[in-house]
Amino acid sequence: MTDGKPPIEFWFDFLSPFGYLGSIQIEKLAAEHGREVVWRPTLLGVMVMNVMGLPAVPATPLKGPYSGRERDRNFGYFGVELNPHGDGVLPPLPAIRTFTWLNMTDPALAKRFGQALYRAHWSEATDVTTPEAVAAFAKARFDLDPDAVIAAIDDPAVKDVLKASVGAALEAGVFGVPTFVVDGQRFWGNERLPMVERLLATGSLAPAG
Amino acid sequence: MTDGKPPIEFWFDFLSPFGYLGSIQIEKLAAEHGREVVWRPTLLGVMVMNVMGLPAVPATPLKGPYSGRERDRNFGYFGVELNPHGDGVLPPLPAIRTFTWLNMTDPALAKRFGQALYRAHWSEATDVTTPEAVAAFAKARFDLDPDAVIAAIDDPAVKDVLKASVGAALEAGVFGVPTFVVDGQRFWGNERLPMVERLLATGSLAPAG
Repeated sequence: MTDGKPPIEFWFDFLSPFGYLGSIQIEKLAAEHGREVVWRPTLLGVMVMNVMGLPAVPATPLKGPYSGRERDRNFGYFGVELNPHGDGVLPPLPAIRTFTWLNMTDPALAKRFGQALYRAHWSEATDVTTPEAVAAFAKARFDLDPDAVIAAIDDPAVKDVLKASVGAALEAGVFGVPTFVVDGQRFWGNERLPMVERLLATGSLAPAG
Repeated sequence: MTDGKPPIEFWFDFLSPFGYLGSIQIEKLAAEHGREVVWRPTLLGVMVMNVMGLPAVPATPLKGPYSGRERDRNFGYFGVELNPHGDGVLPPLPAIRTFTWLNMTDPALAKRFGQALYRAHWSEATDVTTPEAVAAFAKARFDLDPDAVIAAIDDPAVKDVLKASVGAALEAGVFGVPTFVVDGQRFWGNERLPMVERLLATGSLAPAG
């Protein structure tokens, strides 16, 4: 029941553990306040390195080590199990192109796939780093045809839709993951979820009283 | 009454409106939980541009415009009046060297000076951008000798103490303002104050129950 209220946009990239944590939190908040969440894929590397001209966060002096510790700390803070596959690095293209492909015809399935894939990589140490691994995961968990998944990951039409989504992110001023768009306002990062909560609850960011 | 609990470190630079908001919030939180707050000066420009090799936030594509809007939004969120002097730009050296000078002999006075100066620039549209303006402010609000303030701002001994403080910030891994250090953990930004609050209240970042 959403009472005609506009959906929340959730901009994500699978490579970000903060995106994973955000995907869980925003669905909880949205459910509490009668909103839907629309998942919108983007590519953090394109935004940060190509458009903003910045180094990747892990390679940034001072901020890199802080961000690594914050990852571990934030899983504890939100009560989510941190058990990543390998060293945690997730080349995002196979996973996010598969999401994009599913999202073209069945956004609800795409979201369930995205939720399961995030959890697989970050909490279940399951390999989703290659086209073959994503195809096997999609078969095991969603009974999708592995050959169709492999084909989708290399399909120019899917790539174009993803590129357009990254373009829409940039157009909207999105530069980090997760970003939540609520009633026209952008909020970058899980640390701003208390602001999102106040906005959803009261229609305003101002303190009560 | 602090019950022997270690003080909270508050790393700040006057040029940051987020530092101003943080200075208010952390004193409230500390008082609620029986802690003292030690103010530690640093220079954001040195950390971000010289050490991290990044552009200033306002000059960063995508992030710059977001941060500007977030400034205005955060004053509303925390219920603090935003009425900056001029265009809001505050060259920090006259103010932070005066703080450093006072802090060498009277940290309590230095903190009161810092709180008043932050409020003057960001909420009262009062000029504290030059040595002369800071000296006049210090005379008007704290009855300090304007000539002594002017001399302190150019005193090599004061400059050395400030440089050492910036060095200590970098040594501690501080890269942004405000940064709060609580029981050995660093928290960057006001958005992480709910984490600070949980840590102060429960001694842990993990959710209750």
